[in-house]
Amino acid sequence: MTERVVLAYSGGLDTSVAIGWIGEATGAEVVAMAVDVGQGGEDLNVIRKRALDCGAVEAYVADAREEFADEYCMPALQANGLYLDKYPLVSAISRPLIVKHLARAARKFGATTVAHGCTGKGNDQVRFEVATTSLAPDLKTIAPVRDLALTREKAIEYAEKHDLPIATTKSNPFSIDQNVWGRAVETGFLEDIWNEPTKDVYSYTDDPTFPPVADEVTITFEQGVPVAIDGVAVTPLQAIQEMNRRAGAHGVGRIDIVEDRLVGIKSREIYEAPGAMALIAAHQELENVTVEREQMRFKRQVEQRWTELVYDGMWFSPLKKSLDAFVLDTQKYVSGDIRMVLHGGRATVTGRRSDSSLYDFGLATYDEGDTFDQSHAKGFIEIYGLAAKQAAARDAKFGNAEDLG
Amino acid sequence: MTERVVLAYSGGLDTSVAIGWIGEATGAEVVAMAVDVGQGGEDLNVIRKRALDCGAVEAYVADAREEFADEYCMPALQANGLYLDKYPLVSAISRPLIVKHLARAARKFGATTVAHGCTGKGNDQVRFEVATTSLAPDLKTIAPVRDLALTREKAIEYAEKHDLPIATTKSNPFSIDQNVWGRAVETGFLEDIWNEPTKDVYSYTDDPTFPPVADEVTITFEQGVPVAIDGVAVTPLQAIQEMNRRAGAHGVGRIDIVEDRLVGIKSREIYEAPGAMALIAAHQELENVTVEREQMRFKRQVEQRWTELVYDGMWFSPLKKSLDAFVLDTQKYVSGDIRMVLHGGRATVTGRRSDSSLYDFGLATYDEGDTFDQSHAKGFIEIYGLAAKQAAARDAKFGNAEDLG
Amino acid sequence: MTERVVLAYSGGLDTSVAIGWIGEATGAEVVAMAVDVGQGGEDLNVIRKRALDCGAVEAYVADAREEFADEYCMPALQANGLYLDKYPLVSAISRPLIVKHLARAARKFGATTVAHGCTGKGNDQVRFEVATTSLAPDLKTIAPVRDLALTREKAIEYAEKHDLPIATTKSNPFSIDQNVWGRAVETGFLEDIWNEPTKDVYSYTDDPTFPPVADEVTITFEQGVPVAIDGVAVTPLQAIQEMNRRAGAHGVGRIDIVEDRLVGIKSREIYEAPGAMALIAAHQELENVTVEREQMRFKRQVEQRWTELVYDGMWFSPLKKSLDAFVLDTQKYVSGDIRMVLHGGRATVTGRRSDSSLYDFGLATYDEGDTFDQSHAKGFIEIYGLAAKQAAARDAKFGNAEDLG
Amino acid sequence: MTERVVLAYSGGLDTSVAIGWIGEATGAEVVAMAVDVGQGGEDLNVIRKRALDCGAVEAYVADAREEFADEYCMPALQANGLYLDKYPLVSAISRPLIVKHLARAARKFGATTVAHGCTGKGNDQVRFEVATTSLAPDLKTIAPVRDLALTREKAIEYAEKHDLPIATTKSNPFSIDQNVWGRAVETGFLEDIWNEPTKDVYSYTDDPTFPPVADEVTITFEQGVPVAIDGVAVTPLQAIQEMNRRAGAHGVGRIDIVEDRLVGIKSREIYEAPGAMALIAAHQELENVTVEREQMRFKRQVEQRWTELVYDGMWFSPLKKSLDAFVLDTQKYVSGDIRMVLHGGRATVTGRRSDSSLYDFGLATYDEGDTFDQSHAKGFIEIYGLAAKQAAARDAKFGNAEDLG
Repeated sequence: MTERVVLAYSGGLDTSVAIGWIGEATGAEVVAMAVDVGQGGEDLNVIRKRALDCGAVEAYVADAREEFADEYCMPALQANGLYLDKYPLVSAISRPLIVKHLARAARKFGATTVAHGCTGKGNDQVRFEVATTSLAPDLKTIAPVRDLALTREKAIEYAEKHDLPIATTKSNPFSIDQNVWGRAVETGFLEDIWNEPTKDVYSYTDDPTFPPVADEVTITFEQGVPVAIDGVAVTPLQAIQEMNRRAGAHGVGRIDIVEDRLVGIKSREIYEAPGAMALIAAHQELENVTVEREQMRFKRQVEQRWTELVYDGMWFSPLKKSLDAFVLDTQKYVSGDIRMVLHGGRATVTGRRSDSSLYDFGLATYDEGDTFDQSHAKGFIEIYGLAAKQAAARDAKFGNAEDLG
Repeated sequence: MTERVVLAYSGGLDTSVAIGWIGEATGAEVVAMAVDVGQGGEDLNVIRKRALDCGAVEAYVADAREEFADEYCMPALQANGLYLDKYPLVSAISRPLIVKHLARAARKFGATTVAHGCTGKGNDQVRFEVATTSLAPDLKTIAPVRDLALTREKAIEYAEKHDLPIATTKSNPFSIDQNVWGRAVETGFLEDIWNEPTKDVYSYTDDPTFPPVADEVTITFEQGVPVAIDGVAVTPLQAIQEMNRRAGAHGVGRIDIVEDRLVGIKSREIYEAPGAMALIAAHQELENVTVEREQMRFKRQVEQRWTELVYDGMWFSPLKKSLDAFVLDTQKYVSGDIRMVLHGGRATVTGRRSDSSLYDFGLATYDEGDTFDQSHAKGFIEIYGLAAKQAAARDAKFGNAEDLG
Repeated sequence: MTERVVLAYSGGLDTSVAIGWIGEATGAEVVAMAVDVGQGGEDLNVIRKRALDCGAVEAYVADAREEFADEYCMPALQANGLYLDKYPLVSAISRPLIVKHLARAARKFGATTVAHGCTGKGNDQVRFEVATTSLAPDLKTIAPVRDLALTREKAIEYAEKHDLPIATTKSNPFSIDQNVWGRAVETGFLEDIWNEPTKDVYSYTDDPTFPPVADEVTITFEQGVPVAIDGVAVTPLQAIQEMNRRAGAHGVGRIDIVEDRLVGIKSREIYEAPGAMALIAAHQELENVTVEREQMRFKRQVEQRWTELVYDGMWFSPLKKSLDAFVLDTQKYVSGDIRMVLHGGRATVTGRRSDSSLYDFGLATYDEGDTFDQSHAKGFIEIYGLAAKQAAARDAKFGNAEDLG
Repeated sequence: MTERVVLAYSGGLDTSVAIGWIGEATGAEVVAMAVDVGQGGEDLNVIRKRALDCGAVEAYVADAREEFADEYCMPALQANGLYLDKYPLVSAISRPLIVKHLARAARKFGATTVAHGCTGKGNDQVRFEVATTSLAPDLKTIAPVRDLALTREKAIEYAEKHDLPIATTKSNPFSIDQNVWGRAVETGFLEDIWNEPTKDVYSYTDDPTFPPVADEVTITFEQGVPVAIDGVAVTPLQAIQEMNRRAGAHGVGRIDIVEDRLVGIKSREIYEAPGAMALIAAHQELENVTVEREQMRFKRQVEQRWTELVYDGMWFSPLKKSLDAFVLDTQKYVSGDIRMVLHGGRATVTGRRSDSSLYDFGLATYDEGDTFDQSHAKGFIEIYGLAAKQAAARDAKFGNAEDLG
């Protein structure tokens, strides 16, 4: 029986050519698989048909938008997943989901191999292949661009020679990846890191320089997940879509950053994630109100490690699962409303209320109703500072005290 | 000989009354000490004279602005010191400096005690007293508001009775602390955390809603410290002042947050720190370009601990010093230019260049000139994912694998 | 109605006198509560009767040994809970359990206050009172030794005057606390930290200098909990007791350490914990075999924080619960056998086997059967070392390279 | 001009054959380099002569023992470097030093390549090559065993055919690496992790089962470095050698562990490090006495990361240097005497004294001379437990409180 390869198919030139290219290089039949993670763009049925026209023996489209929002974006939100404190992991969280669908398709269509269109110098090849090995250790992986020397030029030549139904115009100036959680843009003139991004880089967000009138929104969370916007119940997917639309109109969530890739190099990336960034800002402030201090301090360390792991392609790793267990436990009381104003690139929290708040007006106020017993402070400070005091006395003994002139 | 107390004197009602109040309660002479950390407001010589008029035996003003910028703000910048990832430690870094000047004055004027105007439920009392104990363990501390029951009402009554040269009008709606690194506002109607701040809360920043035309600025750093702005050499103090002015004009650096106080309660704080926030944003991006990945990942943990320690009043603690040693070592190559656009509340990095950059165009580019050898990727991924692969195989063995339908 | 106080009663002089002392100082009735956490010593019914004879209106004994082993010792084992990497938290884990029983008794007997015999300079007062406030925030706390000035001398005088049925001989040279997880000894001549412990300090362990013949034991774990010893099924309590006996006979688990108390001072402590130390050693090695590398690396940080929290009296805190969730998730595959030799103070692991092992002979062996593909190594190293290489090249550029003569 | 390769030469079969093998495979001349890191065994001049007899164009011996002790072992001691809390990094710290000498020799002899005898599945290949790339990014690396298919069988055949002056008997049952900091043994029947090590595994330590009479030793440290033993001044090298001898006689420092290799597999290792383990035990307890609590708590995290980095071959990385800066700052006061008893596999601290101690008898004692003011405790506990109290009250409000029956 002929071997089969399931190819992660985007509908673009590279993966369209890869269908035939893989077939010729390996003798295998190619099953094309397109996964809808909210990337928009072409109709997926058009894409499906193109795959067949390019020689795929089967072509399959999976609508994974709800699954992506529920099981990938929401954990990222609960973990406030921001790589380098800035980048909301847009591509990093979609890869494991796409691989899961590839692996399912491999099982369904009897394939022994999965294929992806990544190059050999980015993060996504690692995310694809480590996810594959973690879900289905028996599956092999091929990356035609990296392993079969499928360059852009060769792809154009191949497409023209075989008359494939795909445009072979000069490539986009940028390399782009997008889904409902955000959009990533790289390469081209952005590789000169002194260059400012031009307006054509952006698609999910309008220019924040000339915003429409300010938009006030109230987001309701239950256990760290948005469940209503302005009082109307929403699913996670709807929450992201709605915030993409409204925060995007104000240019919220543009990111321009030099980041550390997993393969040991620095690269320059532009991201747009209006919904993700607004939701994370709201979620963080609701945590400030509802999560206990030491729990939150340690959660920051967990968030950093979670984010590094996910960025580094370890979504299905044992540590990731254990960190998830920690994060989930911290979200028990992260419920309540955040009022936020969207305007001119800013998503500003202006109010918060929660039945499970740890903010206690009586303890906090300096006005009438103060219930904090200040008489405890003296004893607290004395013991709290005791270790520092002893260290200071030792510094003095050894002539290392601060100079008091 | 009569005992002497050095009082941290602000020129306001509470500390003006405290001069006499301490004298009556303890029999000691009071030396008033005002420290200029760039808080602006009244002329400090006016304040000095008021202290004498209120009964101080000595009154002393220290211009500590350069010292504050050099030795307190710059380390905070190098550590990207943001409590809860948001608050640039405005008050937290001024307290140890003020205490240092109090302790120096105590030595100079033969005092045995220092006094401060803090209440018994905030962070600043702890910062004052732990700093004191760490610099001069022999000095005692008095906090008239907390320890001698000096309430606002009693202060007004006392000032009127003794005809002190200080206004006794109804108190400011807010409690405010400010210095060149920023400004903190709390209490009043802000204690209802659902309330949005009103315009009168702000002073360092203009409203970002109606900004002037965008302002492009280039900041030059050497080893993590700003040394020039738009090509003109600046001291740290000048850098902060210039950025306060320019970023402030665009409403950059407004912060509204519920935070965890050291004394175990949550409180709501408004901060303005236009210069600090713009400088930190620039510094962080320059680090992205110049600091090696693993060094930066661990530095994040160090930054968090540094920030917690400083927030928690441990500026002079042994751990703080050891963390400083770490941070300093990481700044060796944090030199270069950051171009930034200030507009409408945003301080957006648009370009970066550095002789000590680790960004390597040849490794990063997907165009001509690519020097990255993609043939290594396969081997890297294979070994990098090996542990995850074995864990996945075990999951499968025990029936815990991800469901692939 | 007369107020009631539930006193944590040990049967010793201090708490026997405290029954009457509290009554006289507060007018309340005292309910005495003894909790059996495996401390051995006097029969608890004798102790119960003594409490009544000393004036308690009720006296109550709770056998909490199974509960202590299951819910307190086992989590400590799974977290490899060793404060300063040495001390297995003997007293720290018993306090929250004792408080739980005090609080239950308070509810049952209608008490408004709980009392304990701790001094004002140790850890246990904090553990008692923070646990109380975390379980029953409405309950008040009294510590007669600290708050009611009940000194040893006054206790002897009081006991003799009231003819209490308790020996008033000169106090023990040491202060001792013990339970099934171990035994803590402090004070007396041990306070000179240059002094070596004398033989009379120890009770749970025999002198390791002259051990009996070596004892080989095989401990079977399921999910991080011992379930069989030498093939015989055991409960957690039985596992600890059996290992106390066998490891104790070989002098395993003696600890002599200067440690950092929560109240900011250093103190010198002697511990004996033969069962705990042997079980932890076995558990750690089984984790080495069954837990994935990155999961284990992060677990070390979690273990450290877990241990600090528990030492610091935060057993019932939100962070502790979230850390428990993490730890529990890591224990899923910590199942298998550890063979151990007990001899002369050493508990040495000599063999390990597990169905859920991640040790793979095929990958590890250098002999026949090697399945590791060494051809991947070159690519791995090249990319793994790429960031360090770039940093080194920069060092060279700036003249900071290592000197190669 | 003929290319030159500097080979790390041990004098054994593999590297003796590699001299000719590299020459034949590459056409290069081979310079043999032996580095004395205290591994003992054959006379190094004999080894040097053998290299020449095997065809090396140059053969060079470097006595790096003092350099190794001063610059590699002492930082490991100050960092309490124990991988998995057990393994004192014996091989991990020697590799960077050996590479430094190889790189120096490459410069001296005009070589373009360095070579090592490591296989493709261990840690040492990574350590060698990453160290090389970090010291001299221009140097290439060859590993004949991994890259040129030099198997044991081929080596024997080659040696016999060319009549090389090296024994070709059946290989040692174990793979061994040793230096003055310790000795590592792996492979053979140890690869069955249920097998107990046999007596012939050990060389640096005598059997702890039948120890000589106990040996009491006093070690004096200055800033974390041993400077005297029993009052006699020693260099770091002498300290390690003396403690190897004395602790080795008592079987101290035997380690049997399954560990996580950098290349993603678990392996079983036996180590002997009598001097290292005794010195680390002494150093840790001196830190307990002299380092402030929070500084020590964070240092544990630094130690873990330092140890992982060094184990993972990143000795010359930027992060390692920054961690060194932290560690060095913590050692300022780690000076004083530790008295220790060596007996039967145990190195037990029995006394400690230090001029820079933070242990304060007055604060610690429960006897006369107590200077701790217990009246502060109540206020401390109240504020210290406030956050937990609020969280507990919330648990109760939501019906999640602990069950008090």
